[in-house]
Amino acid sequence: MKGNFVYYNPTKLYFGPDSLNGLKEELKKYGPNLMLNYGGGSIKRNGIYDEVMAVIKETGKTVVENPGVMSNPTLAKLREGVDIARKHQIDLILAVGGGSVCDYSKAVAACAHYEGDYWDAFYLKQQNPPQSQQILPVACVLTMAGTGSEMNAGTVITDADTKLKVGHVYDERLLPQFSILNPNFTLTVPVEQMKAGIFDIMSHILEQYFSDDDDNTSDYLSEGLMHSLIVAARKAVKDPKDYEARSNIMWTATWALNGLINKGKKEDWEVHMIGHSVGAWTHAPHGYTLAAVSLAYYRKIMKFGLKKFVRFAENVWGISPQGKSDEQIANEGLDALKAWMQEIGLPLTLKDIGTTDDMLEGIARGTFLLDAGYHQLTHDELMEVLHESM
Amino acid sequence: MKGNFVYYNPTKLYFGPDSLNGLKEELKKYGPNLMLNYGGGSIKRNGIYDEVMAVIKETGKTVVENPGVMSNPTLAKLREGVDIARKHQIDLILAVGGGSVCDYSKAVAACAHYEGDYWDAFYLKQQNPPQSQQILPVACVLTMAGTGSEMNAGTVITDADTKLKVGHVYDERLLPQFSILNPNFTLTVPVEQMKAGIFDIMSHILEQYFSDDDDNTSDYLSEGLMHSLIVAARKAVKDPKDYEARSNIMWTATWALNGLINKGKKEDWEVHMIGHSVGAWTHAPHGYTLAAVSLAYYRKIMKFGLKKFVRFAENVWGISPQGKSDEQIANEGLDALKAWMQEIGLPLTLKDIGTTDDMLEGIARGTFLLDAGYHQLTHDELMEVLHESM
Repeated sequence: MKGNFVYYNPTKLYFGPDSLNGLKEELKKYGPNLMLNYGGGSIKRNGIYDEVMAVIKETGKTVVENPGVMSNPTLAKLREGVDIARKHQIDLILAVGGGSVCDYSKAVAACAHYEGDYWDAFYLKQQNPPQSQQILPVACVLTMAGTGSEMNAGTVITDADTKLKVGHVYDERLLPQFSILNPNFTLTVPVEQMKAGIFDIMSHILEQYFSDDDDNTSDYLSEGLMHSLIVAARKAVKDPKDYEARSNIMWTATWALNGLINKGKKEDWEVHMIGHSVGAWTHAPHGYTLAAVSLAYYRKIMKFGLKKFVRFAENVWGISPQGKSDEQIANEGLDALKAWMQEIGLPLTLKDIGTTDDMLEGIARGTFLLDAGYHQLTHDELMEVLHESM
Repeated sequence: MKGNFVYYNPTKLYFGPDSLNGLKEELKKYGPNLMLNYGGGSIKRNGIYDEVMAVIKETGKTVVENPGVMSNPTLAKLREGVDIARKHQIDLILAVGGGSVCDYSKAVAACAHYEGDYWDAFYLKQQNPPQSQQILPVACVLTMAGTGSEMNAGTVITDADTKLKVGHVYDERLLPQFSILNPNFTLTVPVEQMKAGIFDIMSHILEQYFSDDDDNTSDYLSEGLMHSLIVAARKAVKDPKDYEARSNIMWTATWALNGLINKGKKEDWEVHMIGHSVGAWTHAPHGYTLAAVSLAYYRKIMKFGLKKFVRFAENVWGISPQGKSDEQIANEGLDALKAWMQEIGLPLTLKDIGTTDDMLEGIARGTFLLDAGYHQLTHDELMEVLHESM
């Protein structure tokens, strides 16, 4: 475990078929004005809205609804939410939805009491809210597994005008106070969204796993999470109503991005950087943008972190090393990842998700090139990755 | 992930060679009266006491020292600590030491403001402190890896007169506020204690792993932790000054018993029940008491949870299943565990840790027989396990 680090994650998780019971307990701790953020209305069709509202009504809160949070929450929508929070003196923001709604709610919580230009300060300049500034408490009723937003302080917002999709991990004050994780709520998610979530989880793990080559407990935990996800994803694709598989996917998602498996490690979030830019151009589901570029990216950087790619092949996919060069073993590991992705029915190319050649330069322009993993891509190498992903 | 559960663990962990910096930050948050619990004085010889005191002095606290916390903290010592906490109106209890000092500090924190007979209520009757009762905040500077006490709400106290060693997991108010985990502090621990800690960790994982046979993310995380521990233990025994190995052991210990890997599972703490009773009779290090009885216990219950023992053999030890019966595979897994224990230099029998035949009936009398794992031992089976462990 290299270096010094702090682990602190006080988000309280209520998990299971009856986890909404936790909402009633927790709501008692907050003031009367509740902001209810949700997406396009699917929670009204599948009954989750009614279930949540029944609990809220019992607690006598004043509810201000803010529907219409989109899958890549926009800056314009953020401004709307901030105005609502200010106008109604909101005491608690409750996100009911997937990672986008949760991300969005954290963004509103961070910006509501900030006096200046929050897009410029928090996103473009990547500053944290001042310590003296009030940050609204956020909680989450999760309806889709993938982003891990329910137990981390991250948020991603897209400026639709400039096509900039910017992520920001705020300080610990943005961690949700509590999250309700009911696997049954994920059963009504369309299968395509479930698959996108599955690859989002896998990518979160891979992007923390593929850095360093020392012996680190975090990498073993990552391998454990990958094993769980690989098995559960196969089952969930065969039978999306398989509670055991869906509950494992939900739990894996939370632990893949709550600050556990990056401890004592560098991380390499380049795939997310590329994926965010692809998302701003194509509006494809986040997980699909990651799936479309991962294989080409990892083949590109493989030789710079060969030892770890060999380990990945052997420990995660059970590739036998006998009589093979390290390159062969490593490539077979990525072949196995690809085969699993095909089995799950994930898109494997940018074309699959509607990217056209004329977008690639723009996608590259919107991609931050990070220097944290085995190799920092040059612009030319990034263009190669994009072309090889087409 | 079966059933409903809550995960909540707000202990803040400062990890690394400079983690004592966190102590200064955190101490500011508490009142002036600090109770400093530690053990037999090794922290004075190795310089940790001076380092900690230097930080405390900078913060201007009034320190009340309570040294002499023994490796199996006694009820008599608990009563001493409670009297000190009451007399000096303690605001924060700081444990500097291993799991025993940390366990002990939580016990004092729970009992200090309880009006009645806390041994009877909290330990013998296994009640929680009333919600209305004040519980003192506890923090920990960890000097030995093993128990996980630095990030959980558990505590074990021994009544020396009746030889009863009783564990109690209190409610979440007993979770340490923060813990300082500096792997360098563990480097001065005698090798025998390091080994005992290593098996304590392994046993914590095994006792959560060996229950249920469904597909559960917790079991994959357990396998990840075991892989990390197996590798790190081998390195640490070869070179106890190996920081990488010692830091992995320290981190693994924390996550092996902080409420993560038991989620959605039953657990089977029978080995700890037997070990506690052995400890009350032999005063052997806690981890050694577990090592001495584990193999016989797992061989005894193996047939009742055969599927999981086969998985253990294959996933943890890489046993090839080809051409073997499930029983053979499972036994080879336990053989591999035994070989690893021998490699580490752990005691494999009760005799090795000073148990004599005339103690066995007494040990059995002091052993709770749990009904949570694959099989509840009868008294006769418990006696068989003890005899087979001799």
